[in-house]
Parts: sequence; structure tokens; C-alpha cells
Amino acid sequence: MVYLNGNFIEKDQAYVSVMDRGFLFGDGIYEVFPAYNRKIIGLDSHLNRLQDGLDAISIKNPHSKDEWKNLINKIISFDSINENQAVYLQISRGSDKNRKHTYGELKPTVFIQSSVIKLREKSTLLNGLSAITREDIRWLKSDTKATSILANTLYAQEAKNNDAEETILYRDGIVTEASSSNVFMVKDKCLFTHPKGPNILPGVTRKKTIECAKASNLKVVESRFTKQQLMEADEVWVTSSTREILPITSIDGIEISNGCAGPIWSLVYDQYQLLK
Amino acid sequence: MVYLNGNFIEKDQAYVSVMDRGFLFGDGIYEVFPAYNRKIIGLDSHLNRLQDGLDAISIKNPHSKDEWKNLINKIISFDSINENQAVYLQISRGSDKNRKHTYGELKPTVFIQSSVIKLREKSTLLNGLSAITREDIRWLKSDTKATSILANTLYAQEAKNNDAEETILYRDGIVTEASSSNVFMVKDKCLFTHPKGPNILPGVTRKKTIECAKASNLKVVESRFTKQQLMEADEVWVTSSTREILPITSIDGIEISNGCAGPIWSLVYDQYQLLK
Repeated sequence: MVYLNGNFIEKDQAYVSVMDRGFLFGDGIYEVFPAYNRKIIGLDSHLNRLQDGLDAISIKNPHSKDEWKNLINKIISFDSINENQAVYLQISRGSDKNRKHTYGELKPTVFIQSSVIKLREKSTLLNGLSAITREDIRWLKSDTKATSILANTLYAQEAKNNDAEETILYRDGIVTEASSSNVFMVKDKCLFTHPKGPNILPGVTRKKTIECAKASNLKVVESRFTKQQLMEADEVWVTSSTREILPITSIDGIEISNGCAGPIWSLVYDQYQLLK
Repeated sequence: MVYLNGNFIEKDQAYVSVMDRGFLFGDGIYEVFPAYNRKIIGLDSHLNRLQDGLDAISIKNPHSKDEWKNLINKIISFDSINENQAVYLQISRGSDKNRKHTYGELKPTVFIQSSVIKLREKSTLLNGLSAITREDIRWLKSDTKATSILANTLYAQEAKNNDAEETILYRDGIVTEASSSNVFMVKDKCLFTHPKGPNILPGVTRKKTIECAKASNLKVVESRFTKQQLMEADEVWVTSSTREILPITSIDGIEISNGCAGPIWSLVYDQYQLLK
């Protein structure tokens, strides 16, 4: 069952008009809420970011926080088997009578669905995962979690085509983030990640990872670093709500961190598990 | 009547799955074909650009050129009254069972509709139209006519909010194009427009405008110019398939071309009308 515009229906019965601006223009905002044991990590942070996204593109939020929480919990309850779920929530600007770039007052389209989170056990991550790198050509509003993300999907597909977990992006030589995750590197026991701003999504898991690192008495620096510095890092991680904190041990075919998940990753990974 | 995946149906009956990647990711390509007296200007150019777009994002073209021409002509024939129509054609990558950024083999979703072109008479354009300017923050693949165009719609809305016809974009001080049209300027009887490349859509009307200018014995230079040069131009135009060639006589509230459509615009505008 999914939620669409006020109704709980079967996913294969869930349709939107071809006039929906989500379909015609990628004119929408989305969120992914990770639930472990049916409890969402960072629920308020995700709802705040949803609000920020709607504000950024001038869509009026159709629900209060409590209404969203009820809808999300209801969607989670439909799956009686899986305790760990990723709830996907999309709000598009809605359907107009005719296709035109500009818009008036429209009723937003709301779509919510849940899927199972298949987490990898820590023991399977000890050799790490691989990534490729590409020039970041996305729009300069990547802090807005919009549905106009063709670029991100093309990067994800390039990773898949290269048997890699992720595509790490760099703009003017500076590592920004990855196709659907934030990027961290460890150098001399200090954790680095790109500062918040228009070039990266302010990941909720990014924030939680920073908190976990600080709780582990690590120094965290939110500052820019180059692709070259990334390649010479002691450890590299990518973080996202559904993938948590993943160690990257190969980038563009070059071994990072001697091909093993590092000790600082292990420490912060364990700390993150305590949030569940 | 519209066309959707093999069927001609009423527009208010035309729905796509919420799993359509056009809806979830803005993962699609589109074209707008302008028909005058039911005959499309630049039909092959538009179909070639459609192919380029599909190639750029690795969607297999579901139809041959002749099949497209038949579908487009059939859509045009449904409106028995209006001879001048804009045919909108969108191909998204299709629907998957689950939402994921990567994709396998999917059946593309094809949507075609027609709307009336309401052209403004030349006599109504003699005082020109206004534009605003904004920093171009779009992705660096703006030569691909993709449906991930939230940025373009936001620019169009800003123009509307400012009672302007268009938002003219500049990147690093260089004028690229406008939210849904190409930009030309005239200086010392020479016509300038941004060269083709990843920063602009290679407009079919842009190409036709260049041809019309050359047919009028004008010198045309496809080279970059600054926002400052734009503001000091003798004439400024924007061109698109459905708006043809429009004179801009006010930019950011500053008068251009003494507030009147210029003589070179008039010459090229007339030449363009001969294409119909």
C-alpha cells in the first residue's frame, strides 16, 4: 500500500496525471526517512529539511509535522514483517490544466511509499567498497532535495556500470558529495567533510555521523578538500540515510586505506548503531 | 485528445504510474514542435535534437522518424479549428517496480499533446517586451532538453512575478540563454549569440534566426558576450519555437534600444515569417 493524495491504495493502482508538474518538469521535493525497528532516525531533521525544500521552491507545505508523522507511521505499519524500512515521500507542485513553465495556485501531489532497508552486516564491509569519480555538473542548488535529479541518476548508473557503490563528485577540483550520499575522509585522525552550502545536500546522516564522531572524541572539520587529498586520505566514507556509513577502499581503481575499512570508520560505525 | 503509450485518449484520462521515472526523477527528454497552418517548422531538426537528447541519457528511441511524424500529424489533426499548434512530446525512461536511482531495461513512457499557439501580431511588438536577469545556476548539460527543469520553471516564475517576458541568464558574467529561449543581441549591425555547447539549448528557432539573418545579409557571430555588453546592445531578442523572435526593450528596468523594437529585428522577423 502507498499513500497518494489522501488515499491509501495499492502501488500498481497509484497514478498521477500527465499534467502533474512532477512528471513534466521535475517540479517537486522529496525525503527518505529511515526507520529501524519501526522508529525513524532523525524524524524532525528530515521534516525540517522537507520544509526547507518546499520553501526553496515556493510550494506550500500541505501538512503539519504531526500529520506527516501520522502518515509516515501508518505507511510503516502496513508492512507487518519488515522492521527496517525506508519511507519515500514526494510532494510535487501539482497538476495544472495546461503545460506551462509558470504556475498559479495548485494543489500539491503527495506520494508516500515504504520499501525494505537491506543493510549490510558490518562483517561484510571490512574490505570496503569501491567508487568512481566524476566532475560535478549538477545545478548550484544541490542543497535542495528536489526531484529534478536526472544528473544524480546518471551518476548512479555510471557507478553501477563500473561495479562501484557510488560516484564521488568534484567541482573545480573540490570534492562535493556523491550521487546520493555525502563524502567524508579521515586524515591524521581528523574527519573532514564538505561544509554545508549550495553544492551539497545537508544529509541527516551526515549530521548524525559528525555527532557520532564527536561523541567518539574525534576532531571534525567541515572544510573543502581536493580530489587529490581524497585519494591520499587514510579513510574515505560515504553516508546516507539508507546506507548509513560505508567505507570506500577503492576509488577509480586505486586502493585507498590499504583496501581495508579503517579503525576510525569502525569506531564511528559502532557509535551510529547506538542510535537505533 | 492526447497520445499516451500507444493510445489516443482524453487528456483528463491520461495518467502515469507514480513509479514513472519522469515523475520520480525528472528522467526524460522532451520536444516542442511548432506547427503553422498545420505544418511544422524544422521538423527534422526537432527530431534530430530529440534523438540527441535520448542518446545523451541513454534512452532507446522507441519510434522511427516516420512513426513520430505520423503520431505528431495525427495529434495536430484532432484540433479541427486551430491551424497553429505547439506539439509537446515527452519520453521518460519508463516505470520500474521499485524506486531506485539506477535502471535496467525499461519501456519508455511516451506522451504527446498539442496546444494552441497564440502568436502576437508584429504590430503589438513594436514597443518590445521586458526581461529580468539572474545568475545561471543550471546543470552543465543544458544542451540536453531534459525534463529535469525545475530551475527553468523557477526562472520563468520569477519573470512572471516581475511582469517580464523572460529571465535572461548569465554565468560568470557571460550571457548564456533565457529560461526557455535563446538570446541574441545586435551591436553595430552585427548579430551575436552564445555559441552552442553545454551551457545552452541548441534552439531550432535559434538556428532558423541565424539563417534568416544571413539571408538578410547580416553578419552573425556565435561568440560569448557579457551581461554588460547585453545592456549596451543596440537590440536584444529572445527566440523560441512557440514565441518566434521577440524584441526585448527593457532589462532589469533599464531601457534597451530606446524602448523600441529595432530595425534589424523587424527585418529578420519578416524573413522568419516566410518560413511558414
